[in-house]
Amino acid sequence: MASTLELLEEHRLFGGWQQRYRHRSATLNADMTFSIFLPGPKRDAPPPVVYFLAGLTCTDENFATKSGAQRVAADLGLVLVMPDTSPRGEGVANDEGYDLGQGAGFYLNATEAPWKPHFRMYDYINEELPALIASNFHVSDRQAIMGHSMGGHGAIMLALRNPARFRSASAFAPIVNPMEVPWGQKAFSAYLGDDRQAWREYDSCWLMRQASSTPPLLIDQGDSDQFLADQLHPERLEAIAQEKGFPLTVRIQPGYDHSYFFIASFVEDHLRFHAEHLLA
Amino acid sequence: MASTLELLEEHRLFGGWQQRYRHRSATLNADMTFSIFLPGPKRDAPPPVVYFLAGLTCTDENFATKSGAQRVAADLGLVLVMPDTSPRGEGVANDEGYDLGQGAGFYLNATEAPWKPHFRMYDYINEELPALIASNFHVSDRQAIMGHSMGGHGAIMLALRNPARFRSASAFAPIVNPMEVPWGQKAFSAYLGDDRQAWREYDSCWLMRQASSTPPLLIDQGDSDQFLADQLHPERLEAIAQEKGFPLTVRIQPGYDHSYFFIASFVEDHLRFHAEHLLA
Repeated sequence: MASTLELLEEHRLFGGWQQRYRHRSATLNADMTFSIFLPGPKRDAPPPVVYFLAGLTCTDENFATKSGAQRVAADLGLVLVMPDTSPRGEGVANDEGYDLGQGAGFYLNATEAPWKPHFRMYDYINEELPALIASNFHVSDRQAIMGHSMGGHGAIMLALRNPARFRSASAFAPIVNPMEVPWGQKAFSAYLGDDRQAWREYDSCWLMRQASSTPPLLIDQGDSDQFLADQLHPERLEAIAQEKGFPLTVRIQPGYDHSYFFIASFVEDHLRFHAEHLLA
Repeated sequence: MASTLELLEEHRLFGGWQQRYRHRSATLNADMTFSIFLPGPKRDAPPPVVYFLAGLTCTDENFATKSGAQRVAADLGLVLVMPDTSPRGEGVANDEGYDLGQGAGFYLNATEAPWKPHFRMYDYINEELPALIASNFHVSDRQAIMGHSMGGHGAIMLALRNPARFRSASAFAPIVNPMEVPWGQKAFSAYLGDDRQAWREYDSCWLMRQASSTPPLLIDQGDSDQFLADQLHPERLEAIAQEKGFPLTVRIQPGYDHSYFFIASFVEDHLRFHAEHLLA
């Protein structure tokens, strides 16, 4: 069933277009909003796509308004797709906590009540949204993925499970080992139930241990990030990558925190990293 | 009376620091908040300061989070100071309209009730805030000023009235002739009363007609700006500058609107324009 895109907003930006669309998602059984940046004409070939997955409490708009990424995407000729972080709306289950329910989909397919009917962000990001983008915009099939915090988890996890699809993946302050940290344990027990076997398919540390290869990976982490000690642990993923010889670069950025000011400071490096693999 | 700065927020950003402060303003008789970007060390001399005045409904945070200006300021070695757009708080008069009262100070000194006791943004921006910055931060006395919409009016008006103080001024979609447009007429009649003689000191077109010289001026204006036809009229200021031989450049940017996406697209040009005059 073809999904119809409703244009909500459109702004000229760095010689390209920043747009915002609403569409009915069959996967999530909900009306979803996403933002997209379309660069001005740069070369004859259709532009590759970089997905950005946002963190807890965010929508498609945080990265769109605060990251400054479009300047670099315009320069490199990259399309940026910025989905929402969960299904939303009146019929969609929710929780009082900022870290569960709407705004906190964790990029997985829920198997437990009351989340199961709508919370299928893994399939939405992995299948429905790319198909929607491919059928509505002039883009190449080359794709990369990046994200922040919960979205950094999503980006690396999706890339590890689909190494042929994503040419590269990167993250700012990602949750790399959700099975073993409070944010992940709360979300996974609610969405996936108590069987920890089911959690592993969404844990980047576990996935990397099973992997035979990975796309090139880049992680930036501020050392003044208030969530670093309890929730993030990039050193765990780094140790596995080193042991297995996988192409992961982890950069610790002194003084930087968990905010979009941190993202803005290094987003150019991430997009140039992706361009290197997407435009090669 | 020395004003004490209370640090509210601090983030590392592009190798410098983004900070947010609260202080008691004697001029406005109110607690005020401003944001400041301090670039990392660039050269031995203390860095010059560029003031950014925001538009209707905005605070000190809009430009700080959405413009991407700090990347360029860090590169050029410029301090950015981002004040709020009006006094605020419980004892401060307000109006139901978005274009009068709190969030809509119009950078003037009100003479009419109920605005007079607090709405003195002209003196705040022109005297109290620069003195506060000079006494609390390591900055040079070289200054430039820029703004957006109502803040573009503020920036050009302040520069025309103080040509020796500001080395350059620039604006995105400024209100250049507030006496003759609905936003300005509503605000000026409320803040300044019905005597239009009193309005002229805050009207850039009138001020430029009286001027014997001006600092270098740059204006960017999107031609898809929904306020262009009724509220902005940059061609009126341009005509006066041409007639008098003043250094004003007006650039019409095709397809761009009134949003911060427009500002983000051209803020680098503005900061390089200011740097040329501040660092010469």
